[in-house]
Amino acid sequence: MAIDIHTHIVPADLPPYLGSNPKTGWPSTCPAHCGHSHLMIHGKIFRTVSNACWNVEQRLTEMDRMGIEHQVLSPMPELLSYWFDTLDTVAMSRVVNDTIGGMVEASRMRFSGLGMVPLQDPDLAARELEALMADGRFRGVEIGTNVNGIPIGDPRFEPFFAAAERLGASVFVHALHPVGDERLIGPPILKPFVSFPCETSFAISSLISSGLLTRHPELKIAFSHGGGAFASVLPRLQFGWRKMAAISDLIPESPSEIARRLYYDTLVYDTPTLRFLLSSFGERSLLVGTDYPFEIYEQDPLGAIENASFSENVVELIRKGNALRYLSL
Amino acid sequence: MAIDIHTHIVPADLPPYLGSNPKTGWPSTCPAHCGHSHLMIHGKIFRTVSNACWNVEQRLTEMDRMGIEHQVLSPMPELLSYWFDTLDTVAMSRVVNDTIGGMVEASRMRFSGLGMVPLQDPDLAARELEALMADGRFRGVEIGTNVNGIPIGDPRFEPFFAAAERLGASVFVHALHPVGDERLIGPPILKPFVSFPCETSFAISSLISSGLLTRHPELKIAFSHGGGAFASVLPRLQFGWRKMAAISDLIPESPSEIARRLYYDTLVYDTPTLRFLLSSFGERSLLVGTDYPFEIYEQDPLGAIENASFSENVVELIRKGNALRYLSL
Repeated sequence: MAIDIHTHIVPADLPPYLGSNPKTGWPSTCPAHCGHSHLMIHGKIFRTVSNACWNVEQRLTEMDRMGIEHQVLSPMPELLSYWFDTLDTVAMSRVVNDTIGGMVEASRMRFSGLGMVPLQDPDLAARELEALMADGRFRGVEIGTNVNGIPIGDPRFEPFFAAAERLGASVFVHALHPVGDERLIGPPILKPFVSFPCETSFAISSLISSGLLTRHPELKIAFSHGGGAFASVLPRLQFGWRKMAAISDLIPESPSEIARRLYYDTLVYDTPTLRFLLSSFGERSLLVGTDYPFEIYEQDPLGAIENASFSENVVELIRKGNALRYLSL
Repeated sequence: MAIDIHTHIVPADLPPYLGSNPKTGWPSTCPAHCGHSHLMIHGKIFRTVSNACWNVEQRLTEMDRMGIEHQVLSPMPELLSYWFDTLDTVAMSRVVNDTIGGMVEASRMRFSGLGMVPLQDPDLAARELEALMADGRFRGVEIGTNVNGIPIGDPRFEPFFAAAERLGASVFVHALHPVGDERLIGPPILKPFVSFPCETSFAISSLISSGLLTRHPELKIAFSHGGGAFASVLPRLQFGWRKMAAISDLIPESPSEIARRLYYDTLVYDTPTLRFLLSSFGERSLLVGTDYPFEIYEQDPLGAIENASFSENVVELIRKGNALRYLSL
């Protein structure tokens, strides 16, 4: 049995928009084919999702089938709403966090919650995080890799990360509105596959180069999809750090050492890549992640870990031990 | 002994600018500390380089020390000059290609040449490539990962790649003016380490998603620095291709299969990453590359390959066999 730290939720019903900005792309849901709903944004289908996004019974059945004893629930990334007016983001966070909190209450044994905060206002985000952690139903928050194009390593986000470290909140970072639209040849459907890995790599690199992860060494932060392309970028950054004084002056610690105290999920889609993650980040850094219940979720996460032929001790850390530490459980 | 397919040159003397656009950043060289010169652009030091950039004797001495029997010479990427008026790029290509051609003439046993063409005008680039291949001193060309922000997989570049395939020209792709300035926290010195790997990944992905590599299966194309972050992106693209009809409709071949008929140099800075490249791309895809003679060049390329404990057969392919095939030697 294992803890799956990368699963998403969508509220069953989103209330109508009550704010004052007519250009806000406030989402709504409407029925799709059996067992599914459309998430609508700006009057168009943004994504068609399984009702497992909010249905606890369906989740529990599928968790049992997958060998997942405990799921960490986080918002569908597009719901993070950093691009709304701040008060509208706060309104959305109430709806999303209530949904997550309710699911956690339905089974505290089987679910933990990561909520959302209005990260475009870092001071407010820090206060909202404090309230969320006092609520009792949340282990921390999900955030995007960037906030309206600003990578999360930018010093303006320091108040939020300082609060997360102080409160012992778990932070889960998911790719969002990725870098490189001008480098993509083909339809937007390619973005999660071509652009997200680089987007996540830029986010992690920004947290390292800004010194944020050195100033907040106790921060518990995990990255989706194995940290994207970062495992391939790290040896090069490490090489630059060893060779160029301008880089080692900037980053007081070895990037490889910093990288090994972060967390990454196992959602990398093949065995050599999973082995490469382990050799890059170490056995204490990997967490099970599935992207459940989205269309492309990993249906056999434990099989994927079995296939890598890690030692029993490492498998146990990945399945559970690391997640207990990451979530302070 | 091995063939090093990733080395750069700079002309010893760059002629004065004779074009008509006062904003052209035509480069020049001036003396720096002993054995070095500054490459000046817009009146500022762009980079300080070793005189080995043009000095054949110095190169031969260092090649012997490194165990390199043959170097492939290509322009310092910033000399590619796609951002000049086309005729100015052509003028620069004359200077650069003459330098490379002259070095090849000095020792055809020890050097092969990759020239440059004005890729911002793909039809002219195709004609220039034809002339270059008829010259007798060149195996092909170096190109950037993008041309003024347009990734090389864009269909507009098809005439160039069609000519390269038809002429049997070797194409070496190097990262240049990378994606993601808005995602970088810190000084531009970070770009080669943080941004180049993603830039190269976007370039390879664009060549796959545009169908260009499927329409030109005989194209001999190599990517610097192990293809950057592409080895970490490929399993995800492969997963999307298997799961999403919208992607498999777009890309008729398996991305993994396409990836295995491309070439990548070994310049990835650590042993696990080199092993990961081999498992991602196969034993017929890797070529020795060093970035010689730039400041951060790999001084012991053969040792780096030894450390990976590949079989003798694989080591021989990487050291020489694959390069002979890539260069049609």
